[in-house]
Amino acid sequence: MQNCEIIDGKLYAAEVLERVKSKIGHLSTVICKTQRATLGLAVILVGTDAASQIYVNNKAKKAKEIGFNSEVYKFPQTATEQEIIECIERLNSDPNVNGILVQLPLPQHINTQKIIDTVNYEKDVDGFSTYNVGLLNSWQDSLEPCTPQGVLILLHEILGTNISGKKAVILGRSRIVGRPMASILIRKGCSVTSLNSNSYNIKDECRTADILISAVGSPSFIKGDWIKKGACVIDVGIVKVNDKLYGDVDFESVRKVAGFLTPVPGGVGPMTVSCLMLNTIKAAYKQYDIKW
Amino acid sequence: MQNCEIIDGKLYAAEVLERVKSKIGHLSTVICKTQRATLGLAVILVGTDAASQIYVNNKAKKAKEIGFNSEVYKFPQTATEQEIIECIERLNSDPNVNGILVQLPLPQHINTQKIIDTVNYEKDVDGFSTYNVGLLNSWQDSLEPCTPQGVLILLHEILGTNISGKKAVILGRSRIVGRPMASILIRKGCSVTSLNSNSYNIKDECRTADILISAVGSPSFIKGDWIKKGACVIDVGIVKVNDKLYGDVDFESVRKVAGFLTPVPGGVGPMTVSCLMLNTIKAAYKQYDIKW
Repeated sequence: MQNCEIIDGKLYAAEVLERVKSKIGHLSTVICKTQRATLGLAVILVGTDAASQIYVNNKAKKAKEIGFNSEVYKFPQTATEQEIIECIERLNSDPNVNGILVQLPLPQHINTQKIIDTVNYEKDVDGFSTYNVGLLNSWQDSLEPCTPQGVLILLHEILGTNISGKKAVILGRSRIVGRPMASILIRKGCSVTSLNSNSYNIKDECRTADILISAVGSPSFIKGDWIKKGACVIDVGIVKVNDKLYGDVDFESVRKVAGFLTPVPGGVGPMTVSCLMLNTIKAAYKQYDIKW
Repeated sequence: MQNCEIIDGKLYAAEVLERVKSKIGHLSTVICKTQRATLGLAVILVGTDAASQIYVNNKAKKAKEIGFNSEVYKFPQTATEQEIIECIERLNSDPNVNGILVQLPLPQHINTQKIIDTVNYEKDVDGFSTYNVGLLNSWQDSLEPCTPQGVLILLHEILGTNISGKKAVILGRSRIVGRPMASILIRKGCSVTSLNSNSYNIKDECRTADILISAVGSPSFIKGDWIKKGACVIDVGIVKVNDKLYGDVDFESVRKVAGFLTPVPGGVGPMTVSCLMLNTIKAAYKQYDIKW
C-alpha cells in the first residue's frame, strides 16, 4: 500500500493569509495612509439562517484579524429587494469598502441574480456576478470564485504549477464550485470532465481522473475503487449528519488508493475563507491601480 | 454494418431560416411599420483577408435574402481602434440596427476584446462579448455563439430535446466553439469532457462519447476506431487542402461506426449562418420588448 498524503488545508490557508497580510501592509503604507483611507470587506446577511450566521461571522472575524475593516450589514428575513439594493449601492460608492459579499442563499422573494449583479464587479469578491463570470470564461483577469480558486492553489502546491494535460473529473455543476472549477482547469490546459446527477458511468469516469474534485454534498459517496492509483482527490462536499461532518469522499477506502486527499473538515474549507481575503486585497489593489 | 445517417445541415439550416423569416414577418407587422423602423444586421470587416471577405459577403447576402437590411462597414487593414469603436457606437445607437457582427480575426494592432465589448451586448449577435459570456455561463438568457447554438439544434433534431445524462466529448476549447459548446451541454445535463491539444488518451476519451464534437481544424484527424458504435458525431472543423475541404473527421472510416455524422461541407457550416440570423431576430424582439 502506497502512502496517501493528507493535505493540510489549514496550513496552506495560513500561507495564503500571510501573503494577504503582507499585501495589506504594502498597500496601507503606499496608499491608504496618505489618502486617510482604510481597507474593508462588507458582508451582507439577510434572514436568520443559522449556518449563514456562522459563515458570516467567521468571514468578518477573519477579515478583522488580518487587518481589514469588516462590517456585517444585517437585514431581516422580510427585507425588500430595494432595501438591499440601496445598501449595496452605498457600499459600491464607499471608497473604504473594497469587497462586498452577499451571503447566499437569499430569501425566496429576493431575485438573487439581481442582487449579485448590483455589486460593482470590481468589489464582487465572491466572483458570482454576471460580468465576473464573463471575464473568467473569456480568459480575462477576474475575481474568481473563492472555492475553486482555493482548490487551484492546493493543486499547484501538490502537483506543481504546470497541470496542463492532466485529466480532471469534477462532480457537480454549481455556480459556486463545479462550473467555475471546470472553466479554470480548462484554461490551465487540463482535460476536464464535468459530471452531474444525470451522469451514468460515474465510477468509470472517476477512475480516469488524475485530479478528482467532488462538490455534490453526498456523505462518503466516493469509494476507494472509484480512484485511479496515486490520484489527487479534492473533497469540497461538507454535510453534517448527527453532529459529525462528512465530505463526499469515503475517507478510509479512498486514502488506500489516492496519492493525495483533502480531509473534511480542514481541507478545502479554510482555503475558501483565505481566498475571500485574497480577493478582497486583490480588489483593493485594482481599485487603487497599484501593481499586484 | 449498421446504417449511419448523414446529417443534412443545409436542410435543418433552411428550416431555421424559415422560422426566422416568419418571426421577421410578425415583428415587421406588429412593430416596424408603425414605427417606420427596419430590421437590420451590420457587419464590420477590417482588412482584406480573403476568407473573411467571403464570410462577410455570405452573411450579408443571406441577411438580405430573408428580409433584413444589411450593411457591411469596411475598414482598411491600417484602421485605428478608435475608428472602429466610433463606428460601433453609432451602430449601437441606431434603432434600425438590431445586430452587430465584427468579423474576426482583427489585425494585430487592434485589441479584439475591447472591440467586441464595445458592441452593446443586446446587439452582440456573435455572443462573444464578456457580458454575454457571463450570461451564458450563469445560465441566464443570452445571445449564444452561433456555431454551438447550431450544433445544439442539430443534436435536438437527431436525439430529441432531452439529452440530459448523455456523454459528450468536445475536442477544442476556443471561445467560438469549444468553450461555449461545453457550457451549453453542461447546462443541458450532459456529462461533458473538454479536450485540447495537451490531452492524452484522446482516442479512449472519444470512445466514451454518445456525442462527439470536434472543432480543432485537423484534417481527417478522427478515425473510425475512436468512435463508440452508434454515436452522434458532429464535425465543426473545416480546412482547405489543395482546393478540397476537409473536416476533422475521417468520413469514410467514421461513417462505418457512427450512428449520425455531419459532413464537411454541408453540415455545421450552414447552421452557423442560420443561427446568426436567428440571433439577429431574437435581438430585435428583445429590443422591441416583444414576446418571442
